Amino acid sequence: MRIAQVAPLAERVPPVRYGGTERVVHALTEELVGRGHEVTLFASGDSLTSARLRPMAPTSRRLAGASDGLFFEIAMLDEVYALSAEFDLIHAHVDGLAFPFARHAEIPTVHTMHGRLDLPAQLRMLARFPEQRLVSISSAQRVASRHLPLNWMGTVHNGIRLQHFTANLTPSDPPYLVFLGRISPEKGPVEAIEIAQRAGIPLKIAAKIDRVDRDWAEQNVIPLFDLPGVDYIGEVDEQEKATLLSGALALLFPIDWPEPFGMTMIESMASGTPVIARRRGSVREVLVEGVTGFICDTDDEMVEAVRHVREIDRARCRQHVEQYFSAETMTTGYEAIYERVLRDHALRATTDEVIAGLRDGPDIANSRALPSLEIPIPIETPVVES
Amino acid sequence: MRIAQVAPLAERVPPVRYGGTERVVHALTEELVGRGHEVTLFASGDSLTSARLRPMAPTSRRLAGASDGLFFEIAMLDEVYALSAEFDLIHAHVDGLAFPFARHAEIPTVHTMHGRLDLPAQLRMLARFPEQRLVSISSAQRVASRHLPLNWMGTVHNGIRLQHFTANLTPSDPPYLVFLGRISPEKGPVEAIEIAQRAGIPLKIAAKIDRVDRDWAEQNVIPLFDLPGVDYIGEVDEQEKATLLSGALALLFPIDWPEPFGMTMIESMASGTPVIARRRGSVREVLVEGVTGFICDTDDEMVEAVRHVREIDRARCRQHVEQYFSAETMTTGYEAIYERVLRDHALRATTDEVIAGLRDGPDIANSRALPSLEIPIPIETPVVES
Repeated sequence: MRIAQVAPLAERVPPVRYGGTERVVHALTEELVGRGHEVTLFASGDSLTSARLRPMAPTSRRLAGASDGLFFEIAMLDEVYALSAEFDLIHAHVDGLAFPFARHAEIPTVHTMHGRLDLPAQLRMLARFPEQRLVSISSAQRVASRHLPLNWMGTVHNGIRLQHFTANLTPSDPPYLVFLGRISPEKGPVEAIEIAQRAGIPLKIAAKIDRVDRDWAEQNVIPLFDLPGVDYIGEVDEQEKATLLSGALALLFPIDWPEPFGMTMIESMASGTPVIARRRGSVREVLVEGVTGFICDTDDEMVEAVRHVREIDRARCRQHVEQYFSAETMTTGYEAIYERVLRDHALRATTDEVIAGLRDGPDIANSRALPSLEIPIPIETPVVES
Repeated sequence: MRIAQVAPLAERVPPVRYGGTERVVHALTEELVGRGHEVTLFASGDSLTSARLRPMAPTSRRLAGASDGLFFEIAMLDEVYALSAEFDLIHAHVDGLAFPFARHAEIPTVHTMHGRLDLPAQLRMLARFPEQRLVSISSAQRVASRHLPLNWMGTVHNGIRLQHFTANLTPSDPPYLVFLGRISPEKGPVEAIEIAQRAGIPLKIAAKIDRVDRDWAEQNVIPLFDLPGVDYIGEVDEQEKATLLSGALALLFPIDWPEPFGMTMIESMASGTPVIARRRGSVREVLVEGVTGFICDTDDEMVEAVRHVREIDRARCRQHVEQYFSAETMTTGYEAIYERVLRDHALRATTDEVIAGLRDGPDIANSRALPSLEIPIPIETPVVES
């Protein structure tokens, strides 16, 4: 299959540090190439890939400190679709920005929605593009839009490349907890600090602080970094993250938003480290309660969960990711969707031609429709809706 | 003429405080309605307009503190183009975001480019849409893209509604200088403070601080607000701005970027207040050296200009805006472009039909091309390129 993978330009593929979407695109692309597909990756020019790279910006825009990503991405999408004769299918990872381009393309596009989809602005956007083929990264991600007539192709949970993480069956002594990702209200860094303090176990925080969150972080979180037992490390790269996670007693994930997936949960489990999470968004799809961690409703429950977390079998955590959240599992899920989309696309193209041929009559010279009459399609039934 | 005006959703139309693009859209829309056009304004729901308002978000996204503007704007553009049968022409003010929608529309779109157009990302985007009809807000705005084959319809300088500003021929005593707009490196607030200090005249600063500029402002500008003779007022509304400007000895405009237009320059002149500006971007198109202010190359020259600014005839400043930068002048410019675009669009549609009719032969029943043969078009010449 000839597939175009279209990544956001915010981060490199794979990301240098933070960047869930670009990490998923990387894992999927590498696995697709390994399975013999012809993959073209549209991404920032510093990306590292086994696919054919089409550089769409000099470097990742966030680490460049630039705010020109939208311009580069509009230019990228136009280029992707101008080249569409080179592909069988386009897989876009840039949310709704690809919708207007995909609508007029000759070849089908699959859009993986990587963000939350519950805000009025997002629902309004989705509702305007009911024909676009969407993939969710969790079932929870679709809850708010469940009454909209959208064209969901399926849910494909995110997967990671397991070779980047080593399962550590014995956490560090003395023990520590970890908070990973982003310092923002919805990720719950304040709660993580409180829970760790109450449980009496040190907390290591490895997270970025976005510009939009800086004011909030300065008022609410950064002062807490001075507390004893709180260690702020900043943003970490892939290797530092793996080391940090594998040594931890548990990952604290006290989110307060409809988390669409939560990559750090599977990275943690792949390292053998259980996850103590709040019951929001995708958490119930990613964790197994009492088996790979604890799913809690309150801070009290999370403190209590820390006390019981040594009862979790760390080997089972790793196995859970190997089975359900590996790059291989994810890629198999996408391959099935690609095949279904291409089959459906070919069928529709054929029936469209047949119907056009019937309307124009069979005696017009050079009719595009004539050859397709040889294909055995039940043209007397309303095949367009099939 | 039935015209859709498509505003950004960042600010209300007209903006409550900061917001150059939305202010231009407001002035243009009001004037078009006054001239008898049927105008539909797509804008945030709190907008105030004489046109028919189609609310595309509950309120302006910046003052709501929301980061969902892109989703609302994609949904808006889809709605605009879905309704295109209701309009003769779409006038979009959302930079390149409307390009992919406009490309497939039945009716023509005119895009006014309101931002700088010199960054690699912007040039790359422009180059991908060479067929899109663009309007620049200054000739300077086009300099960086001059080698690209773009479809420029013309330059229409921004205009303001003159009734909002009263020319004051006698500035306040004791005198003060003013800096207006946005605290960011390219607007030169640090230079403005230095120039005012060296000239020995107090400076009033009325400006917003965006999130992206907060770190820079805290390190470089906010500490200077404590200097004697420096008065930071924050963001001002239309009325406060008019009062502030009309009392000032001069507006300091020490920009260090390719300013695409510079609304505050014309607002200042409309208040009778000369402008002391650095020679960048559009400045030479907006000011008349020695007549409505001074165009300088260095800080030294700007300090010197402050000493001579009382020699400027404040009545001439106002007249300059009345003649070249009023809402009326701007609207006349856009009307001419609309008419040209519609004429060209109708001509192309007709010749396309004629050519299609010639190719198919005149004897095909129900040919769409037949009626147009009655129109006297010189079909033996290559009219498509006319």
